[in-house]
Amino acid sequence: MSAKSVSGEAKRMKAAVFREGKLKLVRDYPVPVPAKGEALIKVLQAGICATDLEILKGYMKFEGVGGHEFVGQVVRTSEASLADRRVVGQINCVCGQCDMCSSGLSNHCRNRTVLGIAGRDGAFAEYLVLPQDNLHVLDEKLTDEQAVFVEPLAAALQIVKQVSIDKRWKIAVLGDGRLGLLACQVLARDNRSVLLVGKHRHKLLVADKKGIRVSLVDEVVGRNDYDLVVDCTGSPTGLKLAVKMVRPRGTIILKTTIAAPVECDLSPLVINEVRLIGSRCGTFSDAIEALSSGEIDISGLISRTFPLERIDEALKFAAEPDSIKVLLRMQA
Amino acid sequence: MSAKSVSGEAKRMKAAVFREGKLKLVRDYPVPVPAKGEALIKVLQAGICATDLEILKGYMKFEGVGGHEFVGQVVRTSEASLADRRVVGQINCVCGQCDMCSSGLSNHCRNRTVLGIAGRDGAFAEYLVLPQDNLHVLDEKLTDEQAVFVEPLAAALQIVKQVSIDKRWKIAVLGDGRLGLLACQVLARDNRSVLLVGKHRHKLLVADKKGIRVSLVDEVVGRNDYDLVVDCTGSPTGLKLAVKMVRPRGTIILKTTIAAPVECDLSPLVINEVRLIGSRCGTFSDAIEALSSGEIDISGLISRTFPLERIDEALKFAAEPDSIKVLLRMQA
Repeated sequence: MSAKSVSGEAKRMKAAVFREGKLKLVRDYPVPVPAKGEALIKVLQAGICATDLEILKGYMKFEGVGGHEFVGQVVRTSEASLADRRVVGQINCVCGQCDMCSSGLSNHCRNRTVLGIAGRDGAFAEYLVLPQDNLHVLDEKLTDEQAVFVEPLAAALQIVKQVSIDKRWKIAVLGDGRLGLLACQVLARDNRSVLLVGKHRHKLLVADKKGIRVSLVDEVVGRNDYDLVVDCTGSPTGLKLAVKMVRPRGTIILKTTIAAPVECDLSPLVINEVRLIGSRCGTFSDAIEALSSGEIDISGLISRTFPLERIDEALKFAAEPDSIKVLLRMQA
Repeated sequence: MSAKSVSGEAKRMKAAVFREGKLKLVRDYPVPVPAKGEALIKVLQAGICATDLEILKGYMKFEGVGGHEFVGQVVRTSEASLADRRVVGQINCVCGQCDMCSSGLSNHCRNRTVLGIAGRDGAFAEYLVLPQDNLHVLDEKLTDEQAVFVEPLAAALQIVKQVSIDKRWKIAVLGDGRLGLLACQVLARDNRSVLLVGKHRHKLLVADKKGIRVSLVDEVVGRNDYDLVVDCTGSPTGLKLAVKMVRPRGTIILKTTIAAPVECDLSPLVINEVRLIGSRCGTFSDAIEALSSGEIDISGLISRTFPLERIDEALKFAAEPDSIKVLLRMQA
């Protein structure tokens, strides 16, 4: 193993920092110093996720550099196989010691930090550090743009790890945003009837072009006849509609995390004996494979790419109903 | 098959009727007339359930004779094996035709009526009618008092039909009321560590006497380390505490149905990938067996028995924090 060091490595960098409910561009943020077992990574591109927008509203009370979806290049590492390589990285940094880690649930590590979400600076910066064990080396088959989708796609693929999909099921995905457009593709691999429900005609069209059935939310009537409903709306209205659509003894997968508590009548869950399953991060290798093989296609999903300097504008654009995925380019 | 008819059968009866948010004793309510396939049953005793108290607050918007927990005697039937027998009855009256019925989920029949809860007069009356197929004949081993517990015990036993209990799990039951005191006994058969959490020392003592671990709710700290948490509180605070107690990837069983929507932060369910399962009615034969064998012991669970005429007083008493199960005696 050879320690790799970049000559003339900068000490200061540009970074977009969450603080007091705002994300502000800081031009002289210190370049992070990798701890033992960590690598320093030059960020190439990063994606803006609904979670980033929720953090702006107070979710997780996170302060620090935002961003957790990225592709980068390793610039300092003690691990020869990683040197100079293009990588993506698992966002949960774990202790390896607690009851969750020792029972194989390290994504739920009691002592974890999470890139750009909890206790650890993220990817809206020129550089970031992550444990070397978190990194996945990419080959040339994946473009940078595809690579930024590895993290959200892994989250979408988590659904089929939690529930085994029946070909005969009636399935709906609620929300035509970033995650919904990935989730419906993931589910459509095993079930041709998947319906994507959304509010935006041009976003639904993206799924429609991929051969997925789509419907405007206003045209959906809750008849409690869906076997599986996946809520990717990022809105309190998602669960309410899911409860109306799911059949007795059916399953709701809840992907939506929102900063504010929501008012919800959960009695129908009891009466109909519904199973509600929270779903978060997934496995990167599965997502890399699904993107490399072309099984999941990101065409039409990137609305715009902004340079990091224009993060304010990028966030505003990402929050607009019309945008799908917004990327940031870190290097000039 | 011989049609049984009782000579001098009354045309009018006493019945306690939900109407406009009140339960009122009516002295000249018509004795129900059994439809084809139904039996007429003389109610001996009935139990007051948390659901009855919620109906008073508007739950299910039900109007009609209340009550769904009962033991009675068949007085008119076309089924010889039921004539004159002491029975309990499944509360869901089903069509046998819909998608739910044909897929073996008849408790979720799309066209069901539910005794004293939805579209069908209930057990707080001198007589009721139910489909003959819903009835379970009792032998002498069960007292009337035990028999009234068949319906709520079946609901408690439903938990172990929905989740297979591991001996090593850490399990908590929230709520020391009627249902919680049954649920903790059900779970303790397979898991000695079951903890019953409640607000009332003397109710917890009932479980303690049966060898179950108990704790006052104020002494419980949510550490997200329980494998299974069962919410039987009948209060919005139950789910909130359950979310704090359940471990990542753990399970919450939700038994609480309340009339009002509740404000709840469901993000921890997503972050911790918790499985929340709604749970309702269960199988009567299992409950009859568990009571007959003495596996489930109702001693200490009946707070008081009132005559039907004193239903107002009985409901008030049932709503008091100190009462456990309150019974009504129908026949003078």
